[in-house]
Amino acid sequence: MQANPQSQRVWLCDSSLRDGSQGKQIAFSVADKIDIIRALDEQGIPFIEAGNPSAGPKDVQLFERMRSIPLQNSRLVAFGATRRKNCRPQDDVGLQALLAAGTEYVTVFGKSWDMQVDQVLRTTLEENLAMISDTVANLVAQGRQVLYDAEHFFDGYRHNPTYAMQTVRAARQAGATCVILCDTNGAALPAEVGAVTAQVVRQLGGEVGIHCHDDIGCAVAASLAAVEAGARHVQGTFVGYGERCGNANLSTILPVLQLKMGYSCVAPQQLPLLTGTARHIADISNVILRSSLPFVGSGAFSHKAGMHVDAVHKNSQTFEHIDPGQVGNERHILISEVGGKAALLHSVKKIQPDIKKDDPVIEQIRETIKKKEMEGYQYESAEASLKLLILGHLKRLKPHFKLDMYRIMGEQNSNIFSLSTAIVKVTVGDGWEMTADEGKGPVNALDKATRKAVTKFYPAIQKVRLIDYKVRVVDQNTASAARVRVLIETSDGEETWTTVGTSRDIIKASLRAIVDSLEYKLSRDDGSL
Amino acid sequence: MQANPQSQRVWLCDSSLRDGSQGKQIAFSVADKIDIIRALDEQGIPFIEAGNPSAGPKDVQLFERMRSIPLQNSRLVAFGATRRKNCRPQDDVGLQALLAAGTEYVTVFGKSWDMQVDQVLRTTLEENLAMISDTVANLVAQGRQVLYDAEHFFDGYRHNPTYAMQTVRAARQAGATCVILCDTNGAALPAEVGAVTAQVVRQLGGEVGIHCHDDIGCAVAASLAAVEAGARHVQGTFVGYGERCGNANLSTILPVLQLKMGYSCVAPQQLPLLTGTARHIADISNVILRSSLPFVGSGAFSHKAGMHVDAVHKNSQTFEHIDPGQVGNERHILISEVGGKAALLHSVKKIQPDIKKDDPVIEQIRETIKKKEMEGYQYESAEASLKLLILGHLKRLKPHFKLDMYRIMGEQNSNIFSLSTAIVKVTVGDGWEMTADEGKGPVNALDKATRKAVTKFYPAIQKVRLIDYKVRVVDQNTASAARVRVLIETSDGEETWTTVGTSRDIIKASLRAIVDSLEYKLSRDDGSL
Repeated sequence: MQANPQSQRVWLCDSSLRDGSQGKQIAFSVADKIDIIRALDEQGIPFIEAGNPSAGPKDVQLFERMRSIPLQNSRLVAFGATRRKNCRPQDDVGLQALLAAGTEYVTVFGKSWDMQVDQVLRTTLEENLAMISDTVANLVAQGRQVLYDAEHFFDGYRHNPTYAMQTVRAARQAGATCVILCDTNGAALPAEVGAVTAQVVRQLGGEVGIHCHDDIGCAVAASLAAVEAGARHVQGTFVGYGERCGNANLSTILPVLQLKMGYSCVAPQQLPLLTGTARHIADISNVILRSSLPFVGSGAFSHKAGMHVDAVHKNSQTFEHIDPGQVGNERHILISEVGGKAALLHSVKKIQPDIKKDDPVIEQIRETIKKKEMEGYQYESAEASLKLLILGHLKRLKPHFKLDMYRIMGEQNSNIFSLSTAIVKVTVGDGWEMTADEGKGPVNALDKATRKAVTKFYPAIQKVRLIDYKVRVVDQNTASAARVRVLIETSDGEETWTTVGTSRDIIKASLRAIVDSLEYKLSRDDGSL
Repeated sequence: MQANPQSQRVWLCDSSLRDGSQGKQIAFSVADKIDIIRALDEQGIPFIEAGNPSAGPKDVQLFERMRSIPLQNSRLVAFGATRRKNCRPQDDVGLQALLAAGTEYVTVFGKSWDMQVDQVLRTTLEENLAMISDTVANLVAQGRQVLYDAEHFFDGYRHNPTYAMQTVRAARQAGATCVILCDTNGAALPAEVGAVTAQVVRQLGGEVGIHCHDDIGCAVAASLAAVEAGARHVQGTFVGYGERCGNANLSTILPVLQLKMGYSCVAPQQLPLLTGTARHIADISNVILRSSLPFVGSGAFSHKAGMHVDAVHKNSQTFEHIDPGQVGNERHILISEVGGKAALLHSVKKIQPDIKKDDPVIEQIRETIKKKEMEGYQYESAEASLKLLILGHLKRLKPHFKLDMYRIMGEQNSNIFSLSTAIVKVTVGDGWEMTADEGKGPVNALDKATRKAVTKFYPAIQKVRLIDYKVRVVDQNTASAARVRVLIETSDGEETWTTVGTSRDIIKASLRAIVDSLEYKLSRDDGSL
């Protein structure tokens, strides 16, 4: 142990692709996995547990493809089990697959809990120790660095500490580079994890790691407690994906270790990549990143209460524990009924910097927002629609076009695929354009027809494209007749913006958001915004 | 301190309605708040911080309405600030509003951090101490039990421990019932929270509480550390709502304290209400409960990996830290590509108990699921659709009706409200029914028309209604032309089930889920399922 914890390195190992893929709603393609590996490499995560070559052809293919893709900062790790009972390591197909992955580092997991040896493996305690020793020794003999995952270590230690220690000692003596204590069921208290880890560090020597799950909401704290107790290798998943309640979240652990506890995990210039990496991984996984996620969530530095917003403007330290820029995130002032005048003033000033605090228009805008929120609008995540609303109240909005009429037609005979058709009429000054287009579903057809009509007057719209479309039922009690809120994210290749529309009719709600998104682009282009 | 922690009570205080309402996407009506109070009362939460009577008429109205609504287990608490600087307590409008709420218990918050006194309050350290003393003494003189929230206590203690201690001593000496140490910025490490709380408990005496936020993902662990250090009052919000990253989650803290640490928070018979209470509060809040939430999330006890599912079937302790029924939750076996044969077999056995493990139909079903998942289907949360799929493969599905044709018409002139119209043709054996209906939007129109046509043949369908409707874009890259997945939750008043449909056309996807939902009901009724 060095005297100054400032300089101490903690090695992170991301298992998003292996343990994370056990999470509900997670299903990665090989291409997805390669994208995630690239993101983690750029972020500077030293170990990436990329898959289990025994689990199926996808992971075998992944390791093959990765041979021709060089990484800057990360090492791939292949994952597998100890040999089966009563079998020589060289005859074990799992170990053969693990070696065939061709990685320098491998993780093997083995049992630490006597009950599991008896009831799940259905073998003797001695054979389990031999399975661990043989496997690790065989892999080391083949030139591998072995990370040994001691599955259920804390449960095992609680029931039979002597045997649990024998299992990790077997791995260490056979040459394991690092022995990782796993809280597989995720229910060990941080204090227990800290105390047991300290014991193992003392008795075993060498590098010890930690692997936690979040079943009692303490995975991050338990991982930190293990590091305080001497663990120097931390396994988790970058945005917390994993079976049941998920794995320890590395996008939380990393900045806490580095900013709050003085350890070193990534290079200082890699830390501000944190939020971008988390959002990118969530995008690839097609999972919406929880807005309240520490450090990287879109709401992690957002402020709603009037009083807090006032205080944050006086001194950001008052309600922010770090500068959001340190982890690549930013502060958001949420506009909502609860939000005070300070938050709204902040938004209005972005559009009209010389506005006075007591200008009556501020109160009028607040009233409109309140009324709209009653109808199901929400401007917290639709800043472009909010800007247009403010611009209107400032009497500076010059609508660039008017959608006079739309009509949609959809027909479907049995299972034969058919398209929706939309007809729209758009007026600009004295001119008008009526046009039609077809699409996969009515919203797609309307989007295409509207953009086609508006492009006739404003060619810049040609570059505009929808990049995300979200629908949320606002009032769930009436189900398919309920009011829906549509959020549309649009990009022109340079900027990305979000607009909102609500209605009981999903098409009408979508159209409102589409119209706002085009109006926003045109108002930006002519300098109104 | 009693010798046996078994019998020690920890008092929970829920602030969902006050601190929780600062969360993104949270906006409670007075009726919502009353529903949540009833749910928390039934759950046995002793203190409910219901609102800030100075914040607006909604909270004043809430306290008025609650005077005629008796509670069994909970006490309402009104929340407010200490008096303003340089003002007598009896002249302070905030304190007048707090007293007017008429609750026996009140929470007042005051500043503990010298920097905040200087820069936010802009007054002297002495005046801040007087503000705390005067306010608490005045409330006590009016017969109130005062819970004193020491805002930013841990930041204050870090910068100036002497002054931070003076502030809580001022509150205690003026008669505060409980002094609550608040980690307002949410970034104190659990070890720090434990150590500082132990100091305060020792130096201050009397009842001490804890109030944490989740900005470094440690709110639960820090609250537990404070309890270990002697705190006996824990503030949080039941499903973790709150500003930025949220407040300490009481639905996690409660079962950990009671099941893992031996404290008493609620009566033993109230513990199994936990999952229901969390889901009910999420419903009222119109927020989808995170499936990975510890104890109460729908995925908290779900298993996907083949190997784990096998082990759980052998002995549930192997991968479950408690019996899900203890907190009113249940085990789910997720069906997905990653899921092994054991998980699928478990589902097939529910429909055909005598199926053999090696029946070739199991493999065929797996193949179909894989193919469907490639198209964007997901059966993990749509068990009814999965059951129909299995029934089909077992050659036991007798489709009750066929939707031969549908046609929708939607027209909208400018801003005048108009309805969508749907025409459907349904065939049952030799009979058929063609009908039409109108609705708010095409999905609503189709849902109504389809149910109307099917009801002609099967009157039981009359009782069926859609209770939730969710849309998710599966492939975000192509936005409005992207494939969408629709999940529909349906109820007949007795049972609730979920079905899934995907397509590039939102209407077609919805229709597939609607057809499945009716088919499921009919198959249940005739005994096929």
